[in-house]
Amino acid sequence: MDNYCFGIDVGGTTIKCGLFRGDGTLFSQWEIPTRTENKGENIIPDIAETIGAKMKEHNLVKEQILGIGIDVPGPVVGNGEVLFAVNLFWGHKRLAEELEKLTGFPVKVGNDANVAALGEAWKGAAAGSQNIIMVTLGTGVGGGIIVNGHILQGSHGAAGEVGHANVHHHEVEKCNCGNRGCLEQYASATGIVRVAHKHLTASDDPSILRGIDPVTAKDVLDAYKAGDALAGKIMDEVGDLLGGALAVFASVTDPEMIVVGGGVSKAGQPIIDCIQRSYVKYAFQACRETPIVLASLGNDAGIYGSARMVLKELN
Amino acid sequence: MDNYCFGIDVGGTTIKCGLFRGDGTLFSQWEIPTRTENKGENIIPDIAETIGAKMKEHNLVKEQILGIGIDVPGPVVGNGEVLFAVNLFWGHKRLAEELEKLTGFPVKVGNDANVAALGEAWKGAAAGSQNIIMVTLGTGVGGGIIVNGHILQGSHGAAGEVGHANVHHHEVEKCNCGNRGCLEQYASATGIVRVAHKHLTASDDPSILRGIDPVTAKDVLDAYKAGDALAGKIMDEVGDLLGGALAVFASVTDPEMIVVGGGVSKAGQPIIDCIQRSYVKYAFQACRETPIVLASLGNDAGIYGSARMVLKELN
Repeated sequence: MDNYCFGIDVGGTTIKCGLFRGDGTLFSQWEIPTRTENKGENIIPDIAETIGAKMKEHNLVKEQILGIGIDVPGPVVGNGEVLFAVNLFWGHKRLAEELEKLTGFPVKVGNDANVAALGEAWKGAAAGSQNIIMVTLGTGVGGGIIVNGHILQGSHGAAGEVGHANVHHHEVEKCNCGNRGCLEQYASATGIVRVAHKHLTASDDPSILRGIDPVTAKDVLDAYKAGDALAGKIMDEVGDLLGGALAVFASVTDPEMIVVGGGVSKAGQPIIDCIQRSYVKYAFQACRETPIVLASLGNDAGIYGSARMVLKELN
Repeated sequence: MDNYCFGIDVGGTTIKCGLFRGDGTLFSQWEIPTRTENKGENIIPDIAETIGAKMKEHNLVKEQILGIGIDVPGPVVGNGEVLFAVNLFWGHKRLAEELEKLTGFPVKVGNDANVAALGEAWKGAAAGSQNIIMVTLGTGVGGGIIVNGHILQGSHGAAGEVGHANVHHHEVEKCNCGNRGCLEQYASATGIVRVAHKHLTASDDPSILRGIDPVTAKDVLDAYKAGDALAGKIMDEVGDLLGGALAVFASVTDPEMIVVGGGVSKAGQPIIDCIQRSYVKYAFQACRETPIVLASLGNDAGIYGSARMVLKELN
């Protein structure tokens, strides 16, 4: 009788679900909507229900289920406690405990960015690495640190919160977090647009971007790849701050590999090259050749990483 | 019959040795000189010999010895391999293997800054913490990262090499490592002197420091504590870069505590206050109240941390 586990990735609009075989292969993948009404009180019961339904669909019995791994967009501490998750309208929640009670299965909980990093270190771009740093360049900048094959959770659930690492002491504009000079203000999709506007205003240099309104991060990255000079200056600034920041992070954990994911990374190898030029300039000699690679699991990183939290304990 | 272990801290001039009881209390402490001639070929045999002599002195038998922990000033990888140790005139050395062969005891090896951090997390300023960051402000700047009670070694033995984290992208002077803008160029004893000279040259502001030649880091710190305005500006710059850097490191591992050691930390609480002012300004909200404390084991951190590497595996 084969063993299975569930990997669940809870986002603000969709809950991605994976049923994995005990050997780590993905057996079935589906989604349910995230019902955030009434402070998200339906989310955990909905997950329990979809797990039960999937078991029925495949005639699985309790004894075959090794456990459930689940990630959420918020800080996780202790044994599966979520401090808060703004996008789920959750305050403090004993997620592991509640889902264990509803399902009867052991539950492992992680922060979404951390779990995505674990997924990439298991089955993705850094497959086989025990120590990685992953940054996710999306609307914001998230990060996950894998140490000895495990997620580094941190004492306040904030390990890998590198989007709010200060990379510019003299920034005047405020980040959403209230600080000034956070990495996210330059290297996220919104950050790239912000830097673009600064450059577009500061000069009259011709640029493809001048014909576009509103400018998106994709526009800037497309113009950069097309050789637009102003987009080059914009991405030089972004790359300098991001590559420099990655070099500092590498001086802390000295990873085998650095993985770059999120929407911005869809620009492909040119964004890696842009980051790497600055990384190499700022990195300590021992870490200078640490590979920087594109994430490869895309939106599936969460279900893979979640499953890995369960299977890891068995290997 | 009581159990014991040895904690050995190998420096460029002295090898500090500790004999610890199995319960972690220090039983005996002594030193031998570091004989660096002939590429430091005597160092390992000298350690084996002094261990044998100490066992004889206290009538200890082989069965009572749990193992040997040892730290060296160089990067350590794998199971006790030292990549190089400039101050010992060592190239690549299988230290654990060689010392195990000579003594017959299991040997654990760590980098000196990392092991000092482990010592502080065990019996020092951060006693009881499982996750800390320690920076050592001496002639250079070293660092150690403790995660889940263990040393983070890194994939090139360079985890915690935060002295070479870039904190100033536009620095023109070179660090010893060849890069420009390393933390060490500002926050080490030599860095503080460098920053002091810059300020002394840049203005004619009166200062106690103008009567001193050559100015040392201790002079700057004494003048700072005495309320000298120019020394205040110097330490504001140092504190801003160091506090900001610690905030970035904290965004990576989210420690329970940050420990500051080394000669510069002898200035006491004023240096902590100076760092904390900037740390709080730059830190991500979740890590803003992470305590920053003075190291408390001084030169004994190495022998304690070394012993802990042996005893840790038993707990």
